[in-house]
Amino acid sequence: MKFAVLGGDMRILKLTGLLAADGHSVHVFGMDRMPPEPGVIQSETLQEACSGAAAVLLPLPATNGQGSVTSPLSSRILPCEAALQAVELGCPVLAGRITPDLAQAARKAESRLTDYFLREELIVANAAATAEGAIQLLMEETDACILGLRVLVIGYGRIGKLTAHRLRAMGAEVTVSARKCADIAWIRAMGYTPAETGALEDVLGSFDAVVNTVPALVLDEARLMRLRQDCVCIDLASKPGGLDFAAASRLGLRAVWALGLPGEVAPRAAAAAIREAVYNILREGGDAL
Amino acid sequence: MKFAVLGGDMRILKLTGLLAADGHSVHVFGMDRMPPEPGVIQSETLQEACSGAAAVLLPLPATNGQGSVTSPLSSRILPCEAALQAVELGCPVLAGRITPDLAQAARKAESRLTDYFLREELIVANAAATAEGAIQLLMEETDACILGLRVLVIGYGRIGKLTAHRLRAMGAEVTVSARKCADIAWIRAMGYTPAETGALEDVLGSFDAVVNTVPALVLDEARLMRLRQDCVCIDLASKPGGLDFAAASRLGLRAVWALGLPGEVAPRAAAAAIREAVYNILREGGDAL
Amino acid sequence: MKFAVLGGDMRILKLTGLLAADGHSVHVFGMDRMPPEPGVIQSETLQEACSGAAAVLLPLPATNGQGSVTSPLSSRILPCEAALQAVELGCPVLAGRITPDLAQAARKAESRLTDYFLREELIVANAAATAEGAIQLLMEETDACILGLRVLVIGYGRIGKLTAHRLRAMGAEVTVSARKCADIAWIRAMGYTPAETGALEDVLGSFDAVVNTVPALVLDEARLMRLRQDCVCIDLASKPGGLDFAAASRLGLRAVWALGLPGEVAPRAAAAAIREAVYNILREGGDAL
Amino acid sequence: MKFAVLGGDMRILKLTGLLAADGHSVHVFGMDRMPPEPGVIQSETLQEACSGAAAVLLPLPATNGQGSVTSPLSSRILPCEAALQAVELGCPVLAGRITPDLAQAARKAESRLTDYFLREELIVANAAATAEGAIQLLMEETDACILGLRVLVIGYGRIGKLTAHRLRAMGAEVTVSARKCADIAWIRAMGYTPAETGALEDVLGSFDAVVNTVPALVLDEARLMRLRQDCVCIDLASKPGGLDFAAASRLGLRAVWALGLPGEVAPRAAAAAIREAVYNILREGGDAL
Repeated sequence: MKFAVLGGDMRILKLTGLLAADGHSVHVFGMDRMPPEPGVIQSETLQEACSGAAAVLLPLPATNGQGSVTSPLSSRILPCEAALQAVELGCPVLAGRITPDLAQAARKAESRLTDYFLREELIVANAAATAEGAIQLLMEETDACILGLRVLVIGYGRIGKLTAHRLRAMGAEVTVSARKCADIAWIRAMGYTPAETGALEDVLGSFDAVVNTVPALVLDEARLMRLRQDCVCIDLASKPGGLDFAAASRLGLRAVWALGLPGEVAPRAAAAAIREAVYNILREGGDAL
Repeated sequence: MKFAVLGGDMRILKLTGLLAADGHSVHVFGMDRMPPEPGVIQSETLQEACSGAAAVLLPLPATNGQGSVTSPLSSRILPCEAALQAVELGCPVLAGRITPDLAQAARKAESRLTDYFLREELIVANAAATAEGAIQLLMEETDACILGLRVLVIGYGRIGKLTAHRLRAMGAEVTVSARKCADIAWIRAMGYTPAETGALEDVLGSFDAVVNTVPALVLDEARLMRLRQDCVCIDLASKPGGLDFAAASRLGLRAVWALGLPGEVAPRAAAAAIREAVYNILREGGDAL
Repeated sequence: MKFAVLGGDMRILKLTGLLAADGHSVHVFGMDRMPPEPGVIQSETLQEACSGAAAVLLPLPATNGQGSVTSPLSSRILPCEAALQAVELGCPVLAGRITPDLAQAARKAESRLTDYFLREELIVANAAATAEGAIQLLMEETDACILGLRVLVIGYGRIGKLTAHRLRAMGAEVTVSARKCADIAWIRAMGYTPAETGALEDVLGSFDAVVNTVPALVLDEARLMRLRQDCVCIDLASKPGGLDFAAASRLGLRAVWALGLPGEVAPRAAAAAIREAVYNILREGGDAL
Repeated sequence: MKFAVLGGDMRILKLTGLLAADGHSVHVFGMDRMPPEPGVIQSETLQEACSGAAAVLLPLPATNGQGSVTSPLSSRILPCEAALQAVELGCPVLAGRITPDLAQAARKAESRLTDYFLREELIVANAAATAEGAIQLLMEETDACILGLRVLVIGYGRIGKLTAHRLRAMGAEVTVSARKCADIAWIRAMGYTPAETGALEDVLGSFDAVVNTVPALVLDEARLMRLRQDCVCIDLASKPGGLDFAAASRLGLRAVWALGLPGEVAPRAAAAAIREAVYNILREGGDAL
């Protein structure tokens, strides 16, 4: 099976290697500043890359917000329209985090565009890698051990669940806060200490570290003031984040906003997760947007 | 605050004790064959029990299917209609697993009826107790240790999640099967071996025990025949169950259908979970059906 | 390889099945009240059983304290002397918990007697099964869940370590007490709450369950009086035990002295552990007493 | 209580802060290039520091191998003899990793010298911090996740035990190798896959990472050649280490020799562990060398 991979960062580079190692024919375009992975062919032209491909892969995120495919490893600019026009009719195009612009371009080019970043298996695998990255970050940022560390995890969504799990496994004393009764019940059922996100004021002073996973301003200045001076804050929430970083800075608190952890701490694992999502989409015949 | 508790089994009896220990005035009717818990008052009449009550509690399940409140600890029959008519106007009535019949009777009596068994916090706490009961059952049914036991958990819903968690914690080699890609992703993210529920045939022969949580016939005769002769089967699924027990019997397999585990293995924990749901409903002002 | 197995309980019966399943020729004598396991031969005489055997196995414990081999599954009495005289010269005899009497009889009969119960691998496997049995017992004895249960484990030897590990894995809040600084350090390094066995008075009132592993009177009447009325006590210590059972009874406390748990809760695992010790001894050429 | 602290690195600096926070009077000499921790007094002279002290603390390791106290944070050289002569008669001197030279100097000065690094509680706390540091290192060195990583831990001493525990907790597939039957039994009882350190040849090719804890050449060139090309090697063993680093380099393997992890990854935890050992020694009246 032939894959064409257009653009992409280190994670996508690793993905090309994984696909080739699985026995596929992999042609890349738009990664010209790096030597290709073993078994991968660097195409001279878009057409060469896409010709006869069973699927075309775009990066994660697919576009740079200015009409081009994300291609930090290329010396050339690769406009989305040009990329989509090179795709043969009927060939599925798989891309990560599709923007309205890209979706519109795809409709114009009559492409069969699918967003692999909507696949739950990829989202969860990313959450697992993020949780692990949070542990690594916490180890690097504190001068204590995770063992015995009193940590508050704010939010019990995917990342909150997996982070709390790993923290406790490493011997931390884990409190998890949530808003919904149902989440509080789960938190208790898993053996963590529950707290209500809306009523953290009284407990904030008792933690050595706080890990936020909620993408809303949970830790405003009034709440940050209640933290111990040596408490470490890690914010895993996507934009706009859940922590007032300016206030944290004024208060002299150590606070880290960690975005894109999977690609950073575990690019191979991140690439493997994309591969699995891609295979699943193709096996199921694609779920075109 | 005065609670009236009408009917109920050992679990509800324990609940009355917990409510009294929290400082509430608790009046019971329809538990006359057991001495009341410390601080609980046994009322002579329905009216005496309900008069001035801030809330009236019915058991779990609330009715016996023949128009009466479940009251195995009473020598009398307690018709639902009579019970509802004794409730003062506007007083919330909290019941577990409300049937259409009971709902209709409540509408007729203009009762504010709420089902506490719809509360996620109670469902999850029950799932946790069920998972723990499954471990206990597995210990009792096998002559091996959980340590090193190769166990298949079928289904990754609430009970599947919590059972897999505990099994692995005790040192079992845990495989979890599910149908959806997203669940498979979670199973992998938690570190279990994933399997597809629809394609168990090839792997069934490699387990020492199977725990089913899916309420559909997953383990039919053809699949049961693939199990090892000494494999232990535990079915946690509610009716109709997920295992062909007649076939299991013919094949000489040890198979247990475990229903109502929380009340059986941990009545105090089960009572505490009901109490929490009751408090949450009352605090939120009731979510009348 | 031919094994002769003389006497024994259900656990040894299972051992004969395991040896036969490994392809050995297994001859038993002194288990006549039970049908032999598949592939095992029931010998008519001691001589027939022992003739040409590569090893002779005696039970665990080997003798009943009155000069006979432990043989609860036999209708006959099997004197140790007779058993040892039937063994061919030079053939290793492997027995569990050898008493001075048996050792002397062996010297007289010039037998190559080895105690398999001195093997660390068997002791540890037994400790693991005991720890698991303690969890099972705790589940059966309390009406709460292990999840959230506040448990004190007294002693941090083999059984204490493995019990604490499993309790925490199931979600209990685990305190472990020990005497030595080094053990306290380990307890902390594993993430449990440490306590000093010599100064338990102040903390005893805060537990839902106590598991003792120390074979000395740790829980005397004065200390038992400090426990909560509904606290469950499990004593895993070998004789003389670590708990004043008469006082516990006077105080109305639920207290269980659990001896011989491996054979009771996991006979197959217990048999497998003996088999491994036997194989290791034979492979190493025996370490005659 | 007055403590005099002579010399020391960042870890000892943190120790002075912890002692002061406990309410002790802490006087330091030989850390002049750093501002003192809150509440700590920087003495001008050795005599001033030691005068009236209840105990004198030397660093870990106490000496630099050339007759001087380890004092990387000082601009001056602090000869051991001078330091010991400043100590008042009968005042206990607590030092880490006492060399024969220092012991002899202490005898000459009639000092009551004790080695706090011989305390099991400190050794274990260091092992826990080392294990945690190993996880951090592994996260940093691999581009995969710990989740699902196939890791071999060589050796089941203190560090091996605690490292295996944390690896499994993070979701790795853990194999532990040891030499003794007893350790193999423990490895199995904890639920890891056991291997024999003497017979690793056949299994070495199946790991993504190897963590060595044995201070002997376990991983020689012949064995390193059996590893996968992308296998990461972490050596936690003290000198001479357990890995042929020159061979690893020739073979293109990623190999890290991690010494002194506790002070590096968790100086505050390391300082707290020294503090506890110091308090225990003083409470027990010192166990003079």
